[in-house]
Amino acid sequence: MLVVMRSDATIRDAQRVAAAIERRGLTAKVTPGQERSTVGVIGTGPLTELARAVNALPGVERVVPISRPYKLASREFCPPSTVIDLGNVRIGGPEFVVIAGPCAVESREQVLLTARRVAAAGATVLRGGAFKPRTSPYAFQGLGHKGLRLLEEGRRECGLPIVTEVMEPGQVAAVARTADILQIGARNMQNFPLLKEVGLAKQPVLLKRGLSATIEEWLMAAEYIMNEGNDEVMLCERGIRTFEPATRNTLDLSAIPLVKQLTHLPIIADPSHGTGHRNLVEPMALAAAAAGADGLIVEVHPDPDAALSDGAQSLSLDGFSHLMRSLKPILAAIGRPLAVCSAERALLASA
Amino acid sequence: MLVVMRSDATIRDAQRVAAAIERRGLTAKVTPGQERSTVGVIGTGPLTELARAVNALPGVERVVPISRPYKLASREFCPPSTVIDLGNVRIGGPEFVVIAGPCAVESREQVLLTARRVAAAGATVLRGGAFKPRTSPYAFQGLGHKGLRLLEEGRRECGLPIVTEVMEPGQVAAVARTADILQIGARNMQNFPLLKEVGLAKQPVLLKRGLSATIEEWLMAAEYIMNEGNDEVMLCERGIRTFEPATRNTLDLSAIPLVKQLTHLPIIADPSHGTGHRNLVEPMALAAAAAGADGLIVEVHPDPDAALSDGAQSLSLDGFSHLMRSLKPILAAIGRPLAVCSAERALLASA
Amino acid sequence: MLVVMRSDATIRDAQRVAAAIERRGLTAKVTPGQERSTVGVIGTGPLTELARAVNALPGVERVVPISRPYKLASREFCPPSTVIDLGNVRIGGPEFVVIAGPCAVESREQVLLTARRVAAAGATVLRGGAFKPRTSPYAFQGLGHKGLRLLEEGRRECGLPIVTEVMEPGQVAAVARTADILQIGARNMQNFPLLKEVGLAKQPVLLKRGLSATIEEWLMAAEYIMNEGNDEVMLCERGIRTFEPATRNTLDLSAIPLVKQLTHLPIIADPSHGTGHRNLVEPMALAAAAAGADGLIVEVHPDPDAALSDGAQSLSLDGFSHLMRSLKPILAAIGRPLAVCSAERALLASA
Amino acid sequence: MLVVMRSDATIRDAQRVAAAIERRGLTAKVTPGQERSTVGVIGTGPLTELARAVNALPGVERVVPISRPYKLASREFCPPSTVIDLGNVRIGGPEFVVIAGPCAVESREQVLLTARRVAAAGATVLRGGAFKPRTSPYAFQGLGHKGLRLLEEGRRECGLPIVTEVMEPGQVAAVARTADILQIGARNMQNFPLLKEVGLAKQPVLLKRGLSATIEEWLMAAEYIMNEGNDEVMLCERGIRTFEPATRNTLDLSAIPLVKQLTHLPIIADPSHGTGHRNLVEPMALAAAAAGADGLIVEVHPDPDAALSDGAQSLSLDGFSHLMRSLKPILAAIGRPLAVCSAERALLASA
Repeated sequence: MLVVMRSDATIRDAQRVAAAIERRGLTAKVTPGQERSTVGVIGTGPLTELARAVNALPGVERVVPISRPYKLASREFCPPSTVIDLGNVRIGGPEFVVIAGPCAVESREQVLLTARRVAAAGATVLRGGAFKPRTSPYAFQGLGHKGLRLLEEGRRECGLPIVTEVMEPGQVAAVARTADILQIGARNMQNFPLLKEVGLAKQPVLLKRGLSATIEEWLMAAEYIMNEGNDEVMLCERGIRTFEPATRNTLDLSAIPLVKQLTHLPIIADPSHGTGHRNLVEPMALAAAAAGADGLIVEVHPDPDAALSDGAQSLSLDGFSHLMRSLKPILAAIGRPLAVCSAERALLASA
Repeated sequence: MLVVMRSDATIRDAQRVAAAIERRGLTAKVTPGQERSTVGVIGTGPLTELARAVNALPGVERVVPISRPYKLASREFCPPSTVIDLGNVRIGGPEFVVIAGPCAVESREQVLLTARRVAAAGATVLRGGAFKPRTSPYAFQGLGHKGLRLLEEGRRECGLPIVTEVMEPGQVAAVARTADILQIGARNMQNFPLLKEVGLAKQPVLLKRGLSATIEEWLMAAEYIMNEGNDEVMLCERGIRTFEPATRNTLDLSAIPLVKQLTHLPIIADPSHGTGHRNLVEPMALAAAAAGADGLIVEVHPDPDAALSDGAQSLSLDGFSHLMRSLKPILAAIGRPLAVCSAERALLASA
Repeated sequence: MLVVMRSDATIRDAQRVAAAIERRGLTAKVTPGQERSTVGVIGTGPLTELARAVNALPGVERVVPISRPYKLASREFCPPSTVIDLGNVRIGGPEFVVIAGPCAVESREQVLLTARRVAAAGATVLRGGAFKPRTSPYAFQGLGHKGLRLLEEGRRECGLPIVTEVMEPGQVAAVARTADILQIGARNMQNFPLLKEVGLAKQPVLLKRGLSATIEEWLMAAEYIMNEGNDEVMLCERGIRTFEPATRNTLDLSAIPLVKQLTHLPIIADPSHGTGHRNLVEPMALAAAAAGADGLIVEVHPDPDAALSDGAQSLSLDGFSHLMRSLKPILAAIGRPLAVCSAERALLASA
Repeated sequence: MLVVMRSDATIRDAQRVAAAIERRGLTAKVTPGQERSTVGVIGTGPLTELARAVNALPGVERVVPISRPYKLASREFCPPSTVIDLGNVRIGGPEFVVIAGPCAVESREQVLLTARRVAAAGATVLRGGAFKPRTSPYAFQGLGHKGLRLLEEGRRECGLPIVTEVMEPGQVAAVARTADILQIGARNMQNFPLLKEVGLAKQPVLLKRGLSATIEEWLMAAEYIMNEGNDEVMLCERGIRTFEPATRNTLDLSAIPLVKQLTHLPIIADPSHGTGHRNLVEPMALAAAAAGADGLIVEVHPDPDAALSDGAQSLSLDGFSHLMRSLKPILAAIGRPLAVCSAERALLASA
């Protein structure tokens, strides 16, 4: 249930509504807006009676039910789009964000070289996995804490904020000390203890869609994080599992405009995992932008064929530069500027 | 197996190669090219011995095996892209084609109004179903032959060529008298007798991907048509069946760049069936263009909510005009002009 | 809508109800039952008014709505199970039926040997394809009419009735002259002109589930056949397409008890196509029987590794005998006798 | 790589082989067998040289490569079937095991009543969830530690061992103090930190197949557990996600005989989650037994319609008794006795 305040209502009016809600054992969430504020109601209880009571309070325009099973994540609950502010980069606003970097952190040289080159080509966030979920216990599992240190060096080198994956609740604190954005991988989309733990963290969360998760289940996973108090969730479409063997996954781009209608959260696309083939990454990246994505996350490696994981889908450094050049006219066509990281700007200016 | 001729080889050289192939009981197909001709070999037989013999003939540069199960349809067999020339519209070349019209032909008023309006908004081919495959025997099955007559009136009205579906072998001749392009629907992608019959027709064929067809099976279906002598096949990605209930199908846009690599045939996208929701059609149409599609096929209805079939996914006339306006900057960004039907141009000029 | 007559109602009462229905422009179908008759209503019209009027007629117990989109096929419309009587074999009754034979008819020797051996091992119907739908135009397409002649020889040899596939409407009459049961293959489950044509034939129809057909779509396909007047439809679960690469399809055995609840039509299972692997056929055959299937259809070949199609999933002659021996205790456990073909019994007795 | 010892080789011979392997930096695992022992090699290194060296040692019959990506879990590595001995119940041997109980532990009355009744009807293990993974953060999340206490009471009441789910690494120790078998749920099949943690526990593990996990990925998940030293893994097929909306999941029974060929681990079936419908549980349970499963896990609730989770798929107490009666003739037909828990036997005898 959502209480929409009149445009001339005061913040005191909204607080009085919130108090009335909480007196009935429910939780209220005040969202101030430019035109009008809203007060969301979370929890179950005597809603009909509550609606009647709230309707009579000063400043209330109307009370609307929320038809979705997710509440905090729904566009009904919070009509304006969420913009996640990393300080030097904003995600979910008019700017288009490009996150790039290696699948896995492998060495200092690899991280620093990739960081410099993707930053120079226009990336705004650096990605890299230190803890890697791998199908086989015998495959490279990531450099772990040493990988986090290398990512920090990468950030110092290029000025870009970092996104990196966290795989278990006990790891969140350590990863959060390094990461600017905490990534929840596809296999962990319904790892509920982990969702709750990142819900308590202070960093924004990049929540990948599960291999075979419906859009509704995905938004319910976001709801788990938001329900713990962390509203800065960005969604990432990375392909779903289908019968088609020619691609690693089927990148479900229709999820992008659909998600934009259902939720106020930002959504980005991962054409690397979404296709599994290097030569499909660029066309699908352009398509994702045209479909309305707020950004991309792309795997880039200085020597893709020697990569310790996901080489087949990694762009070379030159391949990434090519993608960025192709992307520009598309962004111009849809009227979205490419985001520029202000820290990087400073770093480059001082160089 | 494919024989690549030297750039200085004569057409007589190529014919001599073809004769050598056919003497061994195989079929040869000479494809003259701007730079060099090729001679394709179809059938099974003593290929190693044949390769040796052909290699020694004058004008032969090299003999390459074809690794795909489809031969005539493969990019290896015919490297240049196929351009289908309808006389007044070309599909598969640099121009981007937009096919638009109602799901089903319902009445003269509906067809003529839609034809005029989609032509005025920039469509280059008119679509409309006279014979409709419907899940229920109790649903509207199309106007049949009367529907074909109405489509002909629509063509006279707006000058656009027509694409319409044919559902059974015995119907091909009658539909071909009206249609400029014969459509094979998704449910009939592996209706092999029908594929063979349209393979004998003189019209180009629009071959929709089956609900759960792999890309390889789809290209094998094209091969059935081409194997009967009809090389003018355009493919149409219209969404595949997945577990996701929020969309009618999952539009597999990654199939577009992949198909462009595997085959020389044109490929267009159907964001109407691909999503099943009117408000997802425009973003997915833009995404398909950015992904490299040669065109679109879009359902348009003067009164979508009253449509006898597929109303939920049909654009209104104004919605289609909006789509065309949004499409233009994307086409400019990727450097592809919107195709214009020359007959329509004449008609509009005379008006 | 279905009118349930009282147990003491006469057939004249039921006919009077039918007449009242038809006077309103709808179609009525009287189903006499051992305990009570029913009168089904097909078509759309003023059902509320009709229900009121019919309720008042003599002999009417109650009027029930039919909640499914399929009417004739629904269990609500016709509560007793349909038993298809081939003269010498009954399908859908207490007996369990085993259909066996080669995927494709290849030669006289192959057909006659297989026919004798599967009959001797206890099969009750002979299968074999004369017209073969193949993914590749270059693969063996079946012996066609010559294959039909060989099947007839097979029937004379062993006394078993024959099921064989028909692929296009124009072929139905010719195939029906040979076949005791007309098979509609999975790829043709929504080939509506073909469904209508076999709906006009006098033979029972074996309707395979489409590769990615929902159970509701499958029953709607049966409805197409029944709507033309042919009520003798048996369904065949043959596996659906999923993401799992280890089996050719995923045999959906849960469809069996579900279909038995939704419809009165018999259902059999095809563990050969359902798994694609010879060594999975027997366990899945037993499982299908335990799940409540009315029978099996199994591919058997005298030399599976030399088969022209589907060798990997064909049982050898000895493998089929082993299956039949393993099946017997399961049938005893569920209280269903193995069907015996009376013609074969006569043939064997005279030998 | 696997070293197969001669039947007359001594255990000292096998140990000498193991020592030779470990001297090269690899890990060796000696599996004594009734007929012959084997020594498995784990890790990567100069295998060709090792094979040559080992082949020359006394008692070695032959060295075989292991073709699967999973090693410890593969049937090649360990040909005899693994039998997990709970002390009073054995899983994976000739006996057929039935695990039954509520989806979630809700109250003392519910657990004790269910425990008594399922034990009386012939169940051999008690199931019940204390920590519940739920799609919605607003749904009942289980009673947690209090639920574990109630399960212990249930065990004292009926004598049956307990299986219950563990959701995160930090929870394993606490759950393991209560549980006789640790359950890994479908959503956690690729929660690798959790797999590693239960790999260090002393209890057997029931590993559910992920919603869209291939069989190979599932066995790789088992490999994660075994690689930490816990060989007592039983697999559980619980349905995969497909396009079919009529069932909650598609129970992939063909996985059962396939898994029995690929691995030596026991496999059981979950017809409750596999179908999502109470009235499909019994037929699919019988089918699973006929397909070769080593047992079942079934949800049972005293009042299914009032259940806090998964009521639609829970059998009533009487429904479970009916299932057990139907199961007996099937087990007799396939020659497998129903497992009886010896502790329960004692308890019942003393009653």
